[in-house]
Amino acid sequence: MKFKITPVDRDAKQSIQNRIDQKTKPLNSLGRLESVALQMALIQQKKSDNLTLNNPYVLVFAADHGIAKHNISIAGSEVTAQMVANFLTGGAAINAFCRANDCAMTVIDSGVKYPLPELVSSEVSFIDASTGKGTEDFSTQPSMTPEQLSHCEEVATRIVQQELPPDCDVIAFGEMGIGNTSSAAAILALTRRVDANEIVGRGTGITDQQYQAKISLVQRGIDRVNHSYLKTLNAEDILREVGGFEIAQICYGMLAAAEAQKVIIVDGFIVTAAAMLAISMEPRIRDYMVFAHCSDERAHIDMLNYLDVEPLLDLGLRLGEGTGAVLALPLLKSAVAFYNDMATFESAGVVV
Amino acid sequence: MKFKITPVDRDAKQSIQNRIDQKTKPLNSLGRLESVALQMALIQQKKSDNLTLNNPYVLVFAADHGIAKHNISIAGSEVTAQMVANFLTGGAAINAFCRANDCAMTVIDSGVKYPLPELVSSEVSFIDASTGKGTEDFSTQPSMTPEQLSHCEEVATRIVQQELPPDCDVIAFGEMGIGNTSSAAAILALTRRVDANEIVGRGTGITDQQYQAKISLVQRGIDRVNHSYLKTLNAEDILREVGGFEIAQICYGMLAAAEAQKVIIVDGFIVTAAAMLAISMEPRIRDYMVFAHCSDERAHIDMLNYLDVEPLLDLGLRLGEGTGAVLALPLLKSAVAFYNDMATFESAGVVV
Repeated sequence: MKFKITPVDRDAKQSIQNRIDQKTKPLNSLGRLESVALQMALIQQKKSDNLTLNNPYVLVFAADHGIAKHNISIAGSEVTAQMVANFLTGGAAINAFCRANDCAMTVIDSGVKYPLPELVSSEVSFIDASTGKGTEDFSTQPSMTPEQLSHCEEVATRIVQQELPPDCDVIAFGEMGIGNTSSAAAILALTRRVDANEIVGRGTGITDQQYQAKISLVQRGIDRVNHSYLKTLNAEDILREVGGFEIAQICYGMLAAAEAQKVIIVDGFIVTAAAMLAISMEPRIRDYMVFAHCSDERAHIDMLNYLDVEPLLDLGLRLGEGTGAVLALPLLKSAVAFYNDMATFESAGVVV
Repeated sequence: MKFKITPVDRDAKQSIQNRIDQKTKPLNSLGRLESVALQMALIQQKKSDNLTLNNPYVLVFAADHGIAKHNISIAGSEVTAQMVANFLTGGAAINAFCRANDCAMTVIDSGVKYPLPELVSSEVSFIDASTGKGTEDFSTQPSMTPEQLSHCEEVATRIVQQELPPDCDVIAFGEMGIGNTSSAAAILALTRRVDANEIVGRGTGITDQQYQAKISLVQRGIDRVNHSYLKTLNAEDILREVGGFEIAQICYGMLAAAEAQKVIIVDGFIVTAAAMLAISMEPRIRDYMVFAHCSDERAHIDMLNYLDVEPLLDLGLRLGEGTGAVLALPLLKSAVAFYNDMATFESAGVVV
C-alpha cells in the first residue's frame, strides 16, 4: 500500500470528550454535532488545541461511462460535458451551494468523453486529469486497463497533494458522470456479493424499461467479473473491472486526503462506492470520513449500513455533484464553533 | 383573533414549481431543499421574483416555571438566569452556532425568576419583556393569570414588530427555562388528550426517581385542568393553565411573525409546543413554519407527527436555545441560493 495513513490517536479520546462535557450544556445534548467534533479532534489531535476548518474544498470529479451507450440513464454522455461547462459558468446546484456555504470548488476532468468548451471561471478552478475519453462498457469487458487505474491513482494523489491550499482542512468529494450509478451499483454488488436486482436503482430518473435494461446490464457485468476471477476480488480489481475514472480518482483522492490528515466529507451513492473501496484498501481511512447524507438512490442506505456509518443528513437528495457533502459542511463548522468557543460551566459560572 | 395572517398564494404554486423544474438538475433531485424553496417562494410571492433571506434572527425567550420547585429537572431555576448571562457573554451553544451560521441573536427575559446580572453584549441584544418572576406551579393551579397571558401577547407582538430590522426575512425561535419540558409535555397531553406517561420525557437528563415524579406532577396538572373545564379547551386555556411565559411569548411571537409574512423556523420540543398552539389559534400560520429538526426528547416526534410535518434535521439534539433552528438555517440559505442562482437547461445549454 502506497498511502501511509496515520491512525487517529484514540488515547486522546477521553480528554477530548472531557472537554466537550465541560461545555455549558447537558451531557450529550448536542447529539451528532458532538460526534463530529470528537472525530475532527481525533484527526487534528497533533495539530492544535482548537479545531480548524480553513479553506474547505469540494472536488468534483467528472467522467463518462461506456455502459451509458445502452441508453439506461436520464440523458446521454454528452450531458457530462455540458454539466462540466455548467459547473465552470457557476450555474449548477453545487455552485449555488458552494456560494451559500463558503466552500471553494474545483472541477476535475477525470475522463469526459465529449470536448469541453474553453471556459475560464473566476469562482471555480478546473483541472485536466483525464484518464481517457470515458471507460469501456463494463457489461462486456473491464472498464479500464491497469495502466488507466494507475493513472487515476497518480493524478488524484497529485491533485490532493499539490492543487489545494496547504491549510485546507476539509475536502468534500463530488462527482458527475452519466451512467455512474450503474458503476456504483456494480461496485456494491461485487463487494457484498449480491445480485443487481437487489441493488440497482433509478439514478436520477429513468423509465421502467430503462430500469429493467439497467439491471440486466449490471448483472451481466457482475457475472462476467465473478466468472473471470478464481481468487477473491480486491478493491483494485473491482475498480478496474466496473469502476469509472471519476470513481477511481475519488477513491485514491480520499486516500491521499487521509494521508495528509484532512477531514473527508463523503457525498452520496457514487462517492460512497468510492469510499467503500478506499476503506477496503486501507481501513484506517474510515476515521477520517464524515458521511454527509443518505441519498434517495435506493441502495445508498445499503452501503451506509454495510459500512456501519450514520450520515448527518437525510434530505431526499439524488443529484450528486457533491451537493449533499456541501450541505453538511455548515454542521462541521458548527461543531468546530461549539468545540472551540463555548464556555465551560466553570468559566460561565453555571452551576448544575 | 387579533392576528391577520395572509394565506399564502397557492395559485402561484405551479409557476414556482415550473421555475424549480427548469433548473439544471433532474426533477425533484434536490428533495427537501425543493420543498423549502417552494414554501419560501409561496410566502414571499408578492415581494420579489427572487427569494430573500436577509438578516435572519433567532429570538431566545427565557423564563422560569413554578413546577421546577419539585426538583424534576437537571438543575434548579437559578440556572435559567445563569444561562441568560451565558447567552449575553457569548458562551452558550446558541452563540457558537449563530456565529458559525451568520445569524443575529436576541435574548428576551420573558419571566426569569432570579436577578440577571447587568451585562452589555456587543453580539447579542437583550430585551426585558418579563411577564413575572416565573409561572405558578401548574400541578396545583393555573400557571398564569389572564392578564399575564395578555402581557405575553402584547410584548411578543411588539418585539417582532418593532425590535427587528424591517428587512429581516427569517425568524428562528428558541427558548431557555428550567422546567419547561414539563410544561411542553402538558401542552401536548392536553391537546392530544393523552396521559402524561405517554408523553413525558427526561428533558436534558434526570434520574429515574425524578422522571417518575415528573410524570406524576404533569399528570396532576392535566387532571386538574381536565376536571375544571366543561367546554373543550382552546389554545389560550392551555397556555394559561400549563404554559410558560416563554412558551406563550413564542406562540404570539410566531403569530406576529406570520402576520408580517416572515419565514418562521421552529426549533425543538418546547418551541414546537408553542407552534402547535399557534396553529390551533390560526391554522394559516403553518404555511409560514419550517420545522428545523426532530429532537431527542421523547415526545417531539409525536408532536411532529400530530402536526403532520417533516423536520429537516435529525441530529439527536436535546438542548433547546434555538440550536436546532439555527443549524437548519444554512439549508434555507442553500434553498434560496439554488432557487435564485441556478441556470436553467436552456440558459446553460444542457439538453436532456
